[in-house]
Amino acid sequence: MTEKKILIIVMDGLGDRACEELRGLTPLQYIRTPNLDWFVDHGSAGLCDPIAPGIRAGSDTAHLAILGYDPYRVYTGRGPFEAIGVGMDVQPGDVALRCNFATVDDDLEILDRRAGRIRAPETTELVEALDGIEIDGIECYVKESTEHRAVLLLRGDGLSAEITDADPGAGTHLMLVEGKSEEGEFTADIVNRFMEECYNRLKNHPTNRKRLAAGLPPANILVPRGAGEFPMIKPFTERYGMSACCVAGVGMIKGICKACGLDIYPIPPACNGGLDSDLEMKAACALEALSEYDFVLMNCKAPDIAGHDMDARSKAEVVKKLDAMMGYIRSNLPDDLVVAITCDHCTPCSLGDHSGDPVPIAFYTQGCVRDEAREFSESGCSRGFIGRIRGMDIVQICLDMANRTEKFGS
Amino acid sequence: MTEKKILIIVMDGLGDRACEELRGLTPLQYIRTPNLDWFVDHGSAGLCDPIAPGIRAGSDTAHLAILGYDPYRVYTGRGPFEAIGVGMDVQPGDVALRCNFATVDDDLEILDRRAGRIRAPETTELVEALDGIEIDGIECYVKESTEHRAVLLLRGDGLSAEITDADPGAGTHLMLVEGKSEEGEFTADIVNRFMEECYNRLKNHPTNRKRLAAGLPPANILVPRGAGEFPMIKPFTERYGMSACCVAGVGMIKGICKACGLDIYPIPPACNGGLDSDLEMKAACALEALSEYDFVLMNCKAPDIAGHDMDARSKAEVVKKLDAMMGYIRSNLPDDLVVAITCDHCTPCSLGDHSGDPVPIAFYTQGCVRDEAREFSESGCSRGFIGRIRGMDIVQICLDMANRTEKFGS
Repeated sequence: MTEKKILIIVMDGLGDRACEELRGLTPLQYIRTPNLDWFVDHGSAGLCDPIAPGIRAGSDTAHLAILGYDPYRVYTGRGPFEAIGVGMDVQPGDVALRCNFATVDDDLEILDRRAGRIRAPETTELVEALDGIEIDGIECYVKESTEHRAVLLLRGDGLSAEITDADPGAGTHLMLVEGKSEEGEFTADIVNRFMEECYNRLKNHPTNRKRLAAGLPPANILVPRGAGEFPMIKPFTERYGMSACCVAGVGMIKGICKACGLDIYPIPPACNGGLDSDLEMKAACALEALSEYDFVLMNCKAPDIAGHDMDARSKAEVVKKLDAMMGYIRSNLPDDLVVAITCDHCTPCSLGDHSGDPVPIAFYTQGCVRDEAREFSESGCSRGFIGRIRGMDIVQICLDMANRTEKFGS
Repeated sequence: MTEKKILIIVMDGLGDRACEELRGLTPLQYIRTPNLDWFVDHGSAGLCDPIAPGIRAGSDTAHLAILGYDPYRVYTGRGPFEAIGVGMDVQPGDVALRCNFATVDDDLEILDRRAGRIRAPETTELVEALDGIEIDGIECYVKESTEHRAVLLLRGDGLSAEITDADPGAGTHLMLVEGKSEEGEFTADIVNRFMEECYNRLKNHPTNRKRLAAGLPPANILVPRGAGEFPMIKPFTERYGMSACCVAGVGMIKGICKACGLDIYPIPPACNGGLDSDLEMKAACALEALSEYDFVLMNCKAPDIAGHDMDARSKAEVVKKLDAMMGYIRSNLPDDLVVAITCDHCTPCSLGDHSGDPVPIAFYTQGCVRDEAREFSESGCSRGFIGRIRGMDIVQICLDMANRTEKFGS
């Protein structure tokens, strides 16, 4: 039996609900997709709950599930995944915290919890002064996030996420961080000393002097909350005995894949994840990656963007481009490849955000079971042989189609 | 409500993938099956993962699941199931080990790990000299397996599978077996003394004298490894409050059923499990068994054999015979019977071994829900009301259709 290679194509947020602008159809139902349909017609189709029925998955939790990791075990607090989302290199064992830039006085009374809603490029300038501080052998990395937000990532031995928040919520005095258990006391001390060092480095920072001169509140401290530890997980490559990489443009997806032990395959900026991403070029990269790797996860972000924009016509245009991309893959399909086409979640245009609906999925390889599904769409795939599965089943089904599973029993 | 009786028909390895010789169809899609289809048309159909999506089930683990036992809990090491496979009468609490006949010198140096690939009938002769030895109240049963292999089954109080292997793997000196924990020390001592007794009984055994005279290495010891304890499980009959038997020709299936507390219904040799098994006679036995028992599991091995032979045309012929068998059952269908028709796993002809694909399943009883599925095939059943279930769900669904379940709550 030949061991086949595996390509999982995640069309981010592609699943949808009825769109008024599209005569009550979903973008996938509305647009003719001969190439996507070819994979359904020659393969096995079904529906997939990225996490479980009715659960609104994030892209992060859904990609964990699609890679076979139970997000309820692995997704430990928002901190590490916020860090991944802003492109930080998170490693198992790291503790990450979400932070606000805030304005405090010398007595650590909070004057403005958001430092006048400061944002980049000023936050970027301030972060430069803080990134890389080392306290008692613990490395402290900082990166700005959206608006007044930032992420603090701690790396070193003896860390724990068992600590309280510095953010007082409704209160006005900055809280000292404490260990929730003995285990957290060392980390709490590090975070408190980090905050002190923040204040020392930021209070007279040129950016803040400029803000004061302009009558704006200075961002003179970082206030952390929501500590989470990135779990020790068995890397994907070890777990499944395959070399693996991802072809993705979005930082968060690359971060999730990297944290699970996948390589990040280099791709040109032109296919980097926007609405105008060059999808055929991206497909070419994925096929190229398959000559080197056993397993490739490819993410196409464009449909999610159109869904968040609540723009059904734009999403329908994206569907056309995705179908052209699948035409390219179909024309250049290597032998001995298992292809799975699915979404990480629905992003209905009527909602402008993720929903918990199941998403269409199609598996194709030479010699797989052909079923009665003919169309890659929410309703079309529901007629297929695969029935309704979960995101965490996808890798196992691909492994089996790729002749890469051990028999359980005899 | 009348309590109905239950018949589960396991068509071993019947599910398949696209077969080139059958115009890209599966044997079930290729052959017209009016009788199987009658059960689908008048019943509720679906797909079943014998264990879980993408998991390649063995016949042993799948039958455990179909009987409602979680194979991840019950399938404890290969030894007991190898014993069941060769037709030994395994009981809860027994410890079984897989063995090789080997050639050792007087210093227990291993000269040939497979004793010159000795096989039956010589292994049968040697086993006769070893079967039934008793050491410290522990009964030691031995039975030959394929080629140079055999199984050692220990029965008695105080046994444990917590012992090391005697087989040195790459090494050349026979290892003394040791307890992996205190619990295993007694069993380790029994196994060591059994090996010593083996050597004493085999070194001058007439079969070995003949082998020496012919220049062949004597099989003068049994080298055990892979100890496993058959778990204490609640017998099927107690668990479900039904009398139960199996109608099967294959030793392994009978062994699994017996170990789960089912009776073995006697059947004539003509319906004993080969490609040419008389399936209508077997069906008659199953219906006859239903006059005595509440629950009957019937196994038909022929499709699995054709699948392992990679012979799609032969498997298609088996499908015809299975359909004729279902015609017999349909014509002689007792009132108040629940019938479930399914497979323990797929054995795709293109693979020649089990795959992890889901298998078709149909439930029929008078008054059950009729759905839009019309054909008993992988794709046909996927259109049904049942959706995608797991092997461990089957008995519970049957019980419910048979009016044999307790309400949970009020």
